[in-house]
Amino acid sequence: MSVIVQKYGGTSVGDPSRIMNVARRVVETHEAGHKVVVVVSAMSGVTDGLIKLARAVCPGITPPEREMDMLLATGEQTTIALTAMAIQNLGHNAVSFTGAQAGIVTDGVHTKAKIQEISPRKVQQALKDGSIVVVAGFQGESGDGQTTTLGRGGSDLTAIAIAAAIKADLCQIFTDVEGVYTCDPRVVKTASKIDEISYDEMLEMASSGSKVMQSRSVEFAKKFGVPFEVRSSFNNNPGTLVKEETMSMEQVVIRGVSIERNQAKVTLRQVADTPGIASRVFKAIAEAGVTVDMIVQNVSLAGTTDISFTLNKDDLPKARTTLEPLLSTLGKEISAQDGIAKLSVVGIGMRSHSGVAAKVFEALSLGGINIQMISTSEIKIAVVVDEARIAEAANLVHEAFGLSAAK
Amino acid sequence: MSVIVQKYGGTSVGDPSRIMNVARRVVETHEAGHKVVVVVSAMSGVTDGLIKLARAVCPGITPPEREMDMLLATGEQTTIALTAMAIQNLGHNAVSFTGAQAGIVTDGVHTKAKIQEISPRKVQQALKDGSIVVVAGFQGESGDGQTTTLGRGGSDLTAIAIAAAIKADLCQIFTDVEGVYTCDPRVVKTASKIDEISYDEMLEMASSGSKVMQSRSVEFAKKFGVPFEVRSSFNNNPGTLVKEETMSMEQVVIRGVSIERNQAKVTLRQVADTPGIASRVFKAIAEAGVTVDMIVQNVSLAGTTDISFTLNKDDLPKARTTLEPLLSTLGKEISAQDGIAKLSVVGIGMRSHSGVAAKVFEALSLGGINIQMISTSEIKIAVVVDEARIAEAANLVHEAFGLSAAK
Repeated sequence: MSVIVQKYGGTSVGDPSRIMNVARRVVETHEAGHKVVVVVSAMSGVTDGLIKLARAVCPGITPPEREMDMLLATGEQTTIALTAMAIQNLGHNAVSFTGAQAGIVTDGVHTKAKIQEISPRKVQQALKDGSIVVVAGFQGESGDGQTTTLGRGGSDLTAIAIAAAIKADLCQIFTDVEGVYTCDPRVVKTASKIDEISYDEMLEMASSGSKVMQSRSVEFAKKFGVPFEVRSSFNNNPGTLVKEETMSMEQVVIRGVSIERNQAKVTLRQVADTPGIASRVFKAIAEAGVTVDMIVQNVSLAGTTDISFTLNKDDLPKARTTLEPLLSTLGKEISAQDGIAKLSVVGIGMRSHSGVAAKVFEALSLGGINIQMISTSEIKIAVVVDEARIAEAANLVHEAFGLSAAK
Repeated sequence: MSVIVQKYGGTSVGDPSRIMNVARRVVETHEAGHKVVVVVSAMSGVTDGLIKLARAVCPGITPPEREMDMLLATGEQTTIALTAMAIQNLGHNAVSFTGAQAGIVTDGVHTKAKIQEISPRKVQQALKDGSIVVVAGFQGESGDGQTTTLGRGGSDLTAIAIAAAIKADLCQIFTDVEGVYTCDPRVVKTASKIDEISYDEMLEMASSGSKVMQSRSVEFAKKFGVPFEVRSSFNNNPGTLVKEETMSMEQVVIRGVSIERNQAKVTLRQVADTPGIASRVFKAIAEAGVTVDMIVQNVSLAGTTDISFTLNKDDLPKARTTLEPLLSTLGKEISAQDGIAKLSVVGIGMRSHSGVAAKVFEALSLGGINIQMISTSEIKIAVVVDEARIAEAANLVHEAFGLSAAK
């Protein structure tokens, strides 16, 4: 007998008939002899409806965050009650818990609280009593008893955190995709589903635009060694298992290719190559609330250097207005450009295989695609190319590494 | 500075603009220098929508009560968050609490829990900090941490219980009527609003069909000596103050006339006048889940007597099928009749004024209305008449006691 945590997102519980489908799936797992904890999100559309109500009652101000948490927490609470009912309708015991009741203790940062601790006593007791346990995702309670929510990707985090706390054998993240793919199947038609991937690879894929899951949940799973599977709630196909890296994983050089559109780059030219310049630039940018992705600085030439960075193109105007007043003391010129995209090649295998970068560059060069920026980590090579050619670039690289056949 | 608890029902918070009205009213009270706790119900329609969802996900069974409580509790939680936001939109501090957070501890009887204890520490601290406190009505948490709801009239009960716990100076129950009337204004056009009424009178009015409030809330207020006012949320007119009786209250002989339609009566004829008969009859009736109102037994004649009781006419078939099998050992004959109504005359003044009953009977007799049953308590005289003539009867009695001019 295993202990399994299953998480179902908003689309999977979007209406009563889908909730009944989830109940059937949960009951099948339970009947196969496992103890099951189900984590559910708010029914799709419910959260948007609540946000609309909030805006309607406070037209003059941004809805206060403490009260937003109180409001949004009702979304998951509705789903847990309905899911527990649907399971009981199938003749099995089920008991629902809010985040607070499930023992999810967070800090007090409303709308983006961090989990501090889990006291899964009630969850464990209910499992021991033979019940299926249904827990509200996305929410918790601060040490002083305030209702909090965990922010984006919060329900995934709840599932992985509960799995860690009760030492579950497996955590299954049910979603509307079949798993993690070697590339976005809408871009590369021959992309194939990845059976196994390491936490680090998953993290690089996530931070490079393959938004199956938020990085924070993957990081949490890595930290506590919780294996989890991303799979579809609409069929019974096995998904992608995310876990500690194993020896055999290294035999695959490249796990996948991820792309991110809507990027822009900013270059500061002829910046004095003295200590403190970069920190002044990126401190100003961070204070303006702009998230920077790649940063590249070339070697110094005649006492000055060029610093480039990429960012989401929506943030480009903000970055310009932040840096322009500083230009006189920083460098000679700012150039900004959007219409670019990032392609990342990810795989722990590249640690032990040389020539990966060369192969990426060669594939792009044969297609006549110009590389504008390059950045690498231990298990990732990222390049910036013209956004108009990103799909072509992805197909070329995917093909070059033989990923269509990847298993 | 006074501490005031205000309760607004589902109609008063039925949509965002009504919630904003409630916020304005609360802020006015706060700006007048009072500390304010607001208790709110679910927005009208929300509870029905949740019940519909519950039925949809468990077509085969009655939705389990524990999960119904979990589900329905989201209704008030939504309203408290929106109300606190609307108050903050007006520039005042406000903080919302669920029933559990407000310290409302109940027994574990789901869907009709009883309040066992209130620990208003958080409410008091927030008031001390200068906040307006918004509490979810109708809900609590059992000693072992289960979400519970209080059943019908639960939000009124929450308001009165919180008022008792924090020793509020006044509890205001805002509703869709202007207060308690000397009679239902739809029946007696000249009925007037009662300024003050004692708990006992209010209880007799409530149990006699004037359903402004459930008896349990009035009983709770009486037990803990919480004065409360029933008033309209749609205007600023003063309502009816319900409180301990005072000397001056006795000067008004009759406080009001209440009527209850859709009644039926059952008479058991020639019942042996021996101990234990009545208990067998009403035990059987109670076990069938039928609520009996008036019970009348005449003096014994030749060793047998007649026992009559009234009940809601919807329960009449159930009462008949319960009693008929027992008839051979109980009496000679059962007669059952619907199409009757009850008229009650209520007033603590009747204790010290004689002739009240005679005046009721005289008024009805002058109108040619036959009295079918009579039952009295210390502060109430109730009579059963033909349902077709109840409006006429109410007007006659109302007139006879000069209630149209009552203040």
